[in-house]
Amino acid sequence: MFNRVAILGVGLIGGSVAAAVKRFGVAREVIGYSPFDGQEAFRLGLIDGLAVDANQAVNSADLVVVATPPSEVAAMIGKVLPVLSNNAVVTDVSSVKGPVVRAVREVMGTRFEQFVSSHPIAGAETSGPSAARADLFERAQVVINPGEPKATLLVTSFWERLGARVTQMQVQEHDEIYAAVSHLPHAVAFALCLGMSRHPLAEKLGSYGAGGLRDTSRVGASSASLWTNILLENAAALAPLLESQARALQEVSEAIASGDETGLRRLIERGGAWRRAL
Amino acid sequence: MFNRVAILGVGLIGGSVAAAVKRFGVAREVIGYSPFDGQEAFRLGLIDGLAVDANQAVNSADLVVVATPPSEVAAMIGKVLPVLSNNAVVTDVSSVKGPVVRAVREVMGTRFEQFVSSHPIAGAETSGPSAARADLFERAQVVINPGEPKATLLVTSFWERLGARVTQMQVQEHDEIYAAVSHLPHAVAFALCLGMSRHPLAEKLGSYGAGGLRDTSRVGASSASLWTNILLENAAALAPLLESQARALQEVSEAIASGDETGLRRLIERGGAWRRAL
Repeated sequence: MFNRVAILGVGLIGGSVAAAVKRFGVAREVIGYSPFDGQEAFRLGLIDGLAVDANQAVNSADLVVVATPPSEVAAMIGKVLPVLSNNAVVTDVSSVKGPVVRAVREVMGTRFEQFVSSHPIAGAETSGPSAARADLFERAQVVINPGEPKATLLVTSFWERLGARVTQMQVQEHDEIYAAVSHLPHAVAFALCLGMSRHPLAEKLGSYGAGGLRDTSRVGASSASLWTNILLENAAALAPLLESQARALQEVSEAIASGDETGLRRLIERGGAWRRAL
Repeated sequence: MFNRVAILGVGLIGGSVAAAVKRFGVAREVIGYSPFDGQEAFRLGLIDGLAVDANQAVNSADLVVVATPPSEVAAMIGKVLPVLSNNAVVTDVSSVKGPVVRAVREVMGTRFEQFVSSHPIAGAETSGPSAARADLFERAQVVINPGEPKATLLVTSFWERLGARVTQMQVQEHDEIYAAVSHLPHAVAFALCLGMSRHPLAEKLGSYGAGGLRDTSRVGASSASLWTNILLENAAALAPLLESQARALQEVSEAIASGDETGLRRLIERGGAWRRAL
């Protein structure tokens, strides 16, 4: 289907895209580039070739997947734009859309119609090429921000070939929804792990933990540099949710401190009803 | 090994104890009693017989497992004490020890040596007899508060027969550790679910959620009445942890609001290092 797919950034997500492209025979060739993880991704067999720079990877590629942290997407596209074929389509994997799409539009100018933004709802608390899995997108949802029709169709069918279900969403709606369903739970888990790390018995606690601690804190082990980037990029949508979260924690804490049995049960029931409907 | 085991309260934990006793042939007979779940537990085959009241269940039992919420344990033991055989041993399954052991000691008086408190580190966000599983305690940890040596040995070997590893812990240490590794993560998940339930798009959010939301909020669906009870019973040990948790969330929120990239990354890294060591 594709001749050459270029993957810029071959960590957990980029490396998984590369491995899936090869597993499902979606391209003749997958070329990767990463100043950090490139060697490892090549050694692991995720990519067919490792480019010496981004331009070499993009040269003669018909699809370019930019799998860097959100804030670096536009700069990366700006760098390779001069060698990007007029027939090539570019996508990304960012979980924040507003600032990314704005910056890419600025950098690409009239060539912005070659860009269709993607967000695969897949990931893990692990990171790097060694965490990549060819089946990461099977039955996963990929949200795309529709652009020029032909490019949109091409990006849609690309993800479908990797096993994903593709849905469309506008930029602002996307950022508000993913602030709630992804960025907030990560921020809460980061805060939980931070608090636990300061417990006097922090190092012993792991040996007593049951499933509750393990699950509630799981994504707290996610890549710090990637998530710093995501949380800051989506700070605007996240701010009111963090406030509301602080209030909710305060209400639960006050009900506990004052021994308010009826009130506490009501708060837990309200949240539980939401969770059971999930 | 046992002639008759009586289970008072046959929900998720009590029902699983009953099912495990039968599966591993630990007693000739398992009699259950519960004003709420008794009929269902009997219909599901978790217990051999359903008693009409607690006294009937305990009559001629050599082991009594009180699997009610923590605050009801002592009252239940007080009720059955007149019919409890002098050779019988009583245990519970409470995840809070201080107030339970104090109240039981008061109720049992000189017969307190027949009591050994247990806390199986097993459970789920589900509840009721239909959630019971005969393998719930396999490879699970059961923490007991050691008492009279012969009774302690008997309770230890009971849990081991159900597949658990038994460790011993003093009451205060137990309550401090489980405030951190279990009660706090539950409180955080309850607050997260409460906040999510108030989101303008609350009912739609589930369809977009990835694993991060699912895991971080999972225990938020736990039994509201049981957990109201647990959190209130362990309020003293939980209070400083909730304060420290509110501060950690505040720090993460402020770093996001002020765009402090270095600071935010440092907070996430600190928590992440703790989580990866878990």
